[in-house]
Amino acid sequence: MKIEGKSYKTIWFENSLVKIIDQTKLPHRFIIKDLKTVKDAINAIKTMEVRGAPLIGATAAYGLVLSIIEKNDLSFLKKSSEELIASRPTAINLKWAVDRMMKKLSGTNDKEILKIALDEAKAITEEDENFCKNIGLNGLKIIEDIANKKKDTVNILTHCNAGWLATIDWGTATSPIYHAHLKGIKVHVWVDETRPRNQGANLTSYELNEEGISNTVITDNAGGILMQRGEVDMCIVGTDRTLSNGDVCNKIGTYLKALSAKDNNVPFYVALPSSTIDWSTKDHKNIPIEERNSEELSHVEGIDENNEIKKVRIYPQKSNSLNLAFDVTPAKLVTSLITEKGICEASEKGLKGLFK
Amino acid sequence: MKIEGKSYKTIWFENSLVKIIDQTKLPHRFIIKDLKTVKDAINAIKTMEVRGAPLIGATAAYGLVLSIIEKNDLSFLKKSSEELIASRPTAINLKWAVDRMMKKLSGTNDKEILKIALDEAKAITEEDENFCKNIGLNGLKIIEDIANKKKDTVNILTHCNAGWLATIDWGTATSPIYHAHLKGIKVHVWVDETRPRNQGANLTSYELNEEGISNTVITDNAGGILMQRGEVDMCIVGTDRTLSNGDVCNKIGTYLKALSAKDNNVPFYVALPSSTIDWSTKDHKNIPIEERNSEELSHVEGIDENNEIKKVRIYPQKSNSLNLAFDVTPAKLVTSLITEKGICEASEKGLKGLFK
Repeated sequence: MKIEGKSYKTIWFENSLVKIIDQTKLPHRFIIKDLKTVKDAINAIKTMEVRGAPLIGATAAYGLVLSIIEKNDLSFLKKSSEELIASRPTAINLKWAVDRMMKKLSGTNDKEILKIALDEAKAITEEDENFCKNIGLNGLKIIEDIANKKKDTVNILTHCNAGWLATIDWGTATSPIYHAHLKGIKVHVWVDETRPRNQGANLTSYELNEEGISNTVITDNAGGILMQRGEVDMCIVGTDRTLSNGDVCNKIGTYLKALSAKDNNVPFYVALPSSTIDWSTKDHKNIPIEERNSEELSHVEGIDENNEIKKVRIYPQKSNSLNLAFDVTPAKLVTSLITEKGICEASEKGLKGLFK
Repeated sequence: MKIEGKSYKTIWFENSLVKIIDQTKLPHRFIIKDLKTVKDAINAIKTMEVRGAPLIGATAAYGLVLSIIEKNDLSFLKKSSEELIASRPTAINLKWAVDRMMKKLSGTNDKEILKIALDEAKAITEEDENFCKNIGLNGLKIIEDIANKKKDTVNILTHCNAGWLATIDWGTATSPIYHAHLKGIKVHVWVDETRPRNQGANLTSYELNEEGISNTVITDNAGGILMQRGEVDMCIVGTDRTLSNGDVCNKIGTYLKALSAKDNNVPFYVALPSSTIDWSTKDHKNIPIEERNSEELSHVEGIDENNEIKKVRIYPQKSNSLNLAFDVTPAKLVTSLITEKGICEASEKGLKGLFK
């Protein structure tokens, strides 16, 4: 998708380096950063220079490529793979991508290994891109139906950033929106700012602006009254981990929007590539919910009057805070899942119908 | 209640001036500000130097006192009363306090009018203080019951600031908490930061810190998962306007917490003095919901590394935003109302049982 009119992907390999867009600097600065070592890749995931379940999976895959370039040694590769998986706990794609790479690389000889690793990392990114495109085409039908019935702009609420910046291209939740826009359907997006890291305001709104799609940033508190007032036609969000029973683990606050959607008869969709499905965890209570540094709440970065990036503390110094990064939306609140293979019920039956 | 160990009220009259704590500067600076004219009072309400339904009612009452001091003239007084009522639209106490003052002052002769106005403004503040104290004593029983059953710390979630800083003293939602603490009951408060103005983090957490009550600031997104995990024993919030059918208009985001409380069987209480009851509006859709400046979302004030107050823009410059200040929690989601006269069902029957 585009930034200042130029097309980008979120990650690519060039001159033995992995290139990423440093998302911690957006929307204030657009900086392309080089990852030279597997440590750089781990650090980029941990500090959220790259974020979003599909993109951190792809970054981990390229991290293993960097590990091989650095030191073509199996025990180092194994250590790298473990450190990559441990870099963030909740998104399932991270483990999925690393496992896929390691399976491909096991028993490979030293001479071929770099090429095989690189091909597989590229395959993972290309596959994700295709998945996201198909999610968009499948989700497009839902938006089209609403537009046909309403004969007016379709208002869509989204939480956090499940946009192209969270994937390789297109995004998950945003892909149907981009496809609708390309087809000339009038859409307007309510963008939850998504505290504490404001990925909605900083990334989703930024993305939509750059693609020329009408959007309005709202606080995370505002979705309820907008739904009460009939100003939301549908919600669509991404997911970091989808259980086989249809429960969805996504950015904290998603659950509250799903409750409100249910209470106001607003359809609530979750868009996901199959790489986010966790077939083995049966109870959402067993999903590890990441607790991040509380400074993400108490401090905020922005642009001051001299156009410089400045960090300020917004809470009383004495106050404690807790920073949980995800919550779980039970399947009962999800209207449908939108996947690369089609739309299904948020249930084991629905998912198995498409994927097993 | 206390700030740095010294007892304060939020508003008082001294040497022909009205004194307030400038709440836009909290928690970073503690500044007592003089209001000299009715314009100062209107401005203090508009810019939220004073906020909270009971306190803006009291400020409006004192604003009329300042109007009389400035110019003892009935048409000026009438104009002042109209401007005060128009200064913020949603909280009903504002109109309630101004109407009460104007009724008392009608037909008063020029010589007595200042003394009568001052006495009535003082009566309004003293009454609010008593109401809040009684709300606390009534709500205390609920916390006591939970503590007796649980035999462990009672975890209470609150949204925004319905603390003593929103009233004259004690607060509404916080009054039961302060009374429980005074009685030696162990309480811990989950404080919603309450975007966009962060009154939870900046005022409620600050208040609780100063009174030595354990509290943790969380994002507005976090209450859901905490309730799913059983880490919230009860919710308690204030209200800016309570309809006679029990619907509650309060700070935006309250509705989402009430939905989550219902979904997780967590009791959800609303604390209110009877001055917030709107007996005439029958449909919550007729409550004027204030839309405030969108800069309240896009810009944030905090303390920089030099301990100076700095404002930064946190959103992309191109992004639009919408800043609705309140939402409505339907009575079906409210466990009980806690008033100065006792606890009742959130319904016309419940409210009339106590008040008519």
